[in-house]
Amino acid sequence: MKLKLISLAAAGLIASQANAGTVTTDGADIVIKTKGGFEAKTTDGKYSFKIGGRAMIDYNSYDDVINKATGETGSDLFFRRARIEMKGHIEDWKYGLSYNLTGSGSIDQLKTTYTGFGKMANLTIGQQKENFGLDDTGSSKWTAGVERSFVSDAFDTGNNMGIKLHGANDFLTYSLGVYKEGTDSDNDLDTATTGRVVIRPIYSNGTVFHIGAGFTQRDGEFEDISSRLGVRGGEDKTANKLKAEFTATAGGDIIPGEELSAHNIELAFASGPLQIMAEYFDGEVEAPSSVAGSDDIEVDGYYVQASYFLTGESRKYKTGSAAFDKVKPSNASGAWEIFGRMSQLNTDMGSNITLTGGEDAQVTTLGVNYYMNSNVKFALNYVNSETDAKIGTEDDGDAIVGRLQLVF
Amino acid sequence: MKLKLISLAAAGLIASQANAGTVTTDGADIVIKTKGGFEAKTTDGKYSFKIGGRAMIDYNSYDDVINKATGETGSDLFFRRARIEMKGHIEDWKYGLSYNLTGSGSIDQLKTTYTGFGKMANLTIGQQKENFGLDDTGSSKWTAGVERSFVSDAFDTGNNMGIKLHGANDFLTYSLGVYKEGTDSDNDLDTATTGRVVIRPIYSNGTVFHIGAGFTQRDGEFEDISSRLGVRGGEDKTANKLKAEFTATAGGDIIPGEELSAHNIELAFASGPLQIMAEYFDGEVEAPSSVAGSDDIEVDGYYVQASYFLTGESRKYKTGSAAFDKVKPSNASGAWEIFGRMSQLNTDMGSNITLTGGEDAQVTTLGVNYYMNSNVKFALNYVNSETDAKIGTEDDGDAIVGRLQLVF
Amino acid sequence: MKLKLISLAAAGLIASQANAGTVTTDGADIVIKTKGGFEAKTTDGKYSFKIGGRAMIDYNSYDDVINKATGETGSDLFFRRARIEMKGHIEDWKYGLSYNLTGSGSIDQLKTTYTGFGKMANLTIGQQKENFGLDDTGSSKWTAGVERSFVSDAFDTGNNMGIKLHGANDFLTYSLGVYKEGTDSDNDLDTATTGRVVIRPIYSNGTVFHIGAGFTQRDGEFEDISSRLGVRGGEDKTANKLKAEFTATAGGDIIPGEELSAHNIELAFASGPLQIMAEYFDGEVEAPSSVAGSDDIEVDGYYVQASYFLTGESRKYKTGSAAFDKVKPSNASGAWEIFGRMSQLNTDMGSNITLTGGEDAQVTTLGVNYYMNSNVKFALNYVNSETDAKIGTEDDGDAIVGRLQLVF
Repeated sequence: MKLKLISLAAAGLIASQANAGTVTTDGADIVIKTKGGFEAKTTDGKYSFKIGGRAMIDYNSYDDVINKATGETGSDLFFRRARIEMKGHIEDWKYGLSYNLTGSGSIDQLKTTYTGFGKMANLTIGQQKENFGLDDTGSSKWTAGVERSFVSDAFDTGNNMGIKLHGANDFLTYSLGVYKEGTDSDNDLDTATTGRVVIRPIYSNGTVFHIGAGFTQRDGEFEDISSRLGVRGGEDKTANKLKAEFTATAGGDIIPGEELSAHNIELAFASGPLQIMAEYFDGEVEAPSSVAGSDDIEVDGYYVQASYFLTGESRKYKTGSAAFDKVKPSNASGAWEIFGRMSQLNTDMGSNITLTGGEDAQVTTLGVNYYMNSNVKFALNYVNSETDAKIGTEDDGDAIVGRLQLVF
Repeated sequence: MKLKLISLAAAGLIASQANAGTVTTDGADIVIKTKGGFEAKTTDGKYSFKIGGRAMIDYNSYDDVINKATGETGSDLFFRRARIEMKGHIEDWKYGLSYNLTGSGSIDQLKTTYTGFGKMANLTIGQQKENFGLDDTGSSKWTAGVERSFVSDAFDTGNNMGIKLHGANDFLTYSLGVYKEGTDSDNDLDTATTGRVVIRPIYSNGTVFHIGAGFTQRDGEFEDISSRLGVRGGEDKTANKLKAEFTATAGGDIIPGEELSAHNIELAFASGPLQIMAEYFDGEVEAPSSVAGSDDIEVDGYYVQASYFLTGESRKYKTGSAAFDKVKPSNASGAWEIFGRMSQLNTDMGSNITLTGGEDAQVTTLGVNYYMNSNVKFALNYVNSETDAKIGTEDDGDAIVGRLQLVF
Repeated sequence: MKLKLISLAAAGLIASQANAGTVTTDGADIVIKTKGGFEAKTTDGKYSFKIGGRAMIDYNSYDDVINKATGETGSDLFFRRARIEMKGHIEDWKYGLSYNLTGSGSIDQLKTTYTGFGKMANLTIGQQKENFGLDDTGSSKWTAGVERSFVSDAFDTGNNMGIKLHGANDFLTYSLGVYKEGTDSDNDLDTATTGRVVIRPIYSNGTVFHIGAGFTQRDGEFEDISSRLGVRGGEDKTANKLKAEFTATAGGDIIPGEELSAHNIELAFASGPLQIMAEYFDGEVEAPSSVAGSDDIEVDGYYVQASYFLTGESRKYKTGSAAFDKVKPSNASGAWEIFGRMSQLNTDMGSNITLTGGEDAQVTTLGVNYYMNSNVKFALNYVNSETDAKIGTEDDGDAIVGRLQLVF
């Protein structure tokens, strides 16, 4: 009887497969997945491919010191980021491509990582993150605030062409890389060297305690150090900035400083739904040697932020990059998170230096996030920005920022 | 005996699967498809992903009033459109990305639709069509003419960032949205509001009778209303235009009008291989308030077109967008369609207004389409354009337009 | 007993499929593949789709005549090429899309080929290679040198919009096409006609002997014929060039020549790991008829190159394009190839002609390639360039070029 039942089951299988065409592969077995995008990987672990994208649609409303037209409320609706993304691996080589669709299109990242030396010595070549600072190292998709802290933005190294050695285990994460900063007047490469070390005294049972430090040393030409006041918009050339800039000119152009160096200290603690992180940055641009008596630009600042999931989830932490990552709601009704951050950036008046916004600025951000599922996120932030000196007629401003984020 | 046969069949199945590697998924069952592009969807209806593209290769030849160099025949060969397209859905969120590869790349559409409120209340957020007019609402892939009517082009709202509420059943289709038109001198959003209602008194047995109306109201700055004379090419800045433009200037720049408003009425009847459609548009730009005695720009126009499949097919009609869509040849030798359209656009001379092409223009288009299969279409159009006043030395012109379209 | 075993096997099949979700198709059976990118094709041969990309990360170091800042060593690190690629077919129509991610994005190729007339008469329409010269016709992914010969570059027609008839069997490959060179002052197309014929007196047992000839005739406006000195970099507007340029001007602009014509002869022999190839090119630009007594620009040149796989592999040869293609390492430790090339380009002083680099330049390139697998290639080239006349203070220069290439 058992035999007969099995055979009938087999017959049923055949029947259902007769209706549908078969899908096979001519190589190693493949597992595919679609949860928005599409993914295929061989079960022997040798190959994988994934395609998807991200869209962040932001509505910003801002006034006073944030807006060029002081005294007026400005607003905008725009793609903060829109990208096509592919990644995969071929034996010991991982690769990742992220292409910006905004503007007229540009490469965000395009890199390949050789993993053949093991987890403690990955080699990543191509256009990539330099991994300077906890906030900047994490993905923009999963930050608790709509924007990263305005201190992190001041010291953001961006994505650059270069080569990075990096590795991680549960206790330690390190990275050290050399990148293209630009080319000089002799058509020779200006390089940047950036390193970071993170240790995790606690990393178990959903609790992580993260202590790190990093530096970047950059050859090239640097006219200023500056940062937006916590929000996009308001035509940031003439407002919405704390900026320290050299003033000596030659032939109408600013004579730039010759080297930018910065270092940071980072701390994070996360346990269950609670996440706290803080960073301190200190950087300077060397005064142009051709301008006698000029001072260096010196900027330092810090932020402290805390976020909490009302619905009990926690933000994933990746040891590979020593940064926080994805949020996955625990149940079908989604996840709710509240968030607050205080950021302070300071600079100094000096000979041959002009300041926009004065010597200090402070940005306070409060926010709430709703993660409808793993792919759809809504965020609402309130931002208050204060500068030490007036920009136009204002030294204070507020903004409301709403975001709909779709990851596929 | 039956049991034995089934078991042998099962054995055959196993044998054939031993030759080829298996393809499975670690989640819900998946159905994939390739007919040019690639598509995957889970059988539980929760997720899907599709990737493909379109290429339209046009050859245009044109003379006289259409060509800048009057008296000379001009020609061009170019990608009229070339796009990569992705779409899919994640639970209640559909998404669509269409990226223009021409020029230096730009987002055509990038949008997400929340479908959780049901068919009568979809919410689409992102860069999208505003759905103003039947001709402009339909896909450029499936228009009967190579170009949309030059009246529709005059009132084309383009794809814009915004939010649209829309719904449809067999009888009714509606949409109402608010979009970003631009930003003003205070960095504040200029918005456009656009709505459309379509009813279908007949919609059964392959026959559709479609009656609709729409409006758009746009804040911002508008220097003119204009349209190409039914064809691309001929350097359209100085020829190939009916245009009504403001003339008052300040500091060398035209002082623009302050608001554009337009409405339309649309009619369509399709039954089997026959399709008839007609639209009337009426719009105006308010004269700049700072220019005393200036008139508004006023433009109206209509088109009437008919098309017929010699091979008996019919163009699909989508209630969701209340627009005509895809053509699928009934048999392997492909489908043949003939097409004719008459378009008329009128404007008025006025104080502070200058006209290119005079007060009226008329474009007559005749065409034949060959749909080789669902993916490959050939089109040949003859265009005759007449203007009320000469542009250069001509008030009449002809064009031949050929297209090869590939959809994958 | 046999019956029972089969039934148990069927039961096992059911069990394993109960753990993993099924993947089926609702049309013809599909075979999929992932080896970096992703590929799907129906087993009935009617449809296929493939997506992937390429990245070439180059480090260049160069001095003297190659570098604008003479006497200084310059260097750069950059994406030489970065592309997303899709291809597939729909019944008798193949299509291919290759999109440049570098710069601000551009279409590299976008074309469709009708294969319904058989192998000897393919019709390719769209933006495509013109197939002028063996070196330029082969894929940039699989050239033995990091760059093609600087003679091939001087006569490179690029990818253009047009229509090409082409066919091949084991003995013969031909192509003849008409392309858009540009548009003239009457908005009329300037066209280029390009043809090529290759025969293979030997093509068997891993040995190919290839003899070919081609021509291109191009209407339009041409100010010069020029080529980089074998390497990218060094700001090529003022250095790193052999260039013959017209000098007569009108209103500050060079009066261009009116027609460019060129022809070539190509030879190749490959047997096992050895590959030898050589080409001779001869071209001219007709002097502008409006400049009395002006001479034509005349340029000719040749290259000879040889490469050898130390590990015994051979480079694939494609009869369809009559060009060398892919390298696949024979074993897991990868493939090693050595390579050398001598290129010589000559031009003439003349009335109304100015020369950069003098009348002759010679580039010698030596290289070694390591193909780690089918997807990852490392290349290291040494380049020596000599010009007949000094550019700045130099008539000689060297370069080192390293490349990491990833194909997915």
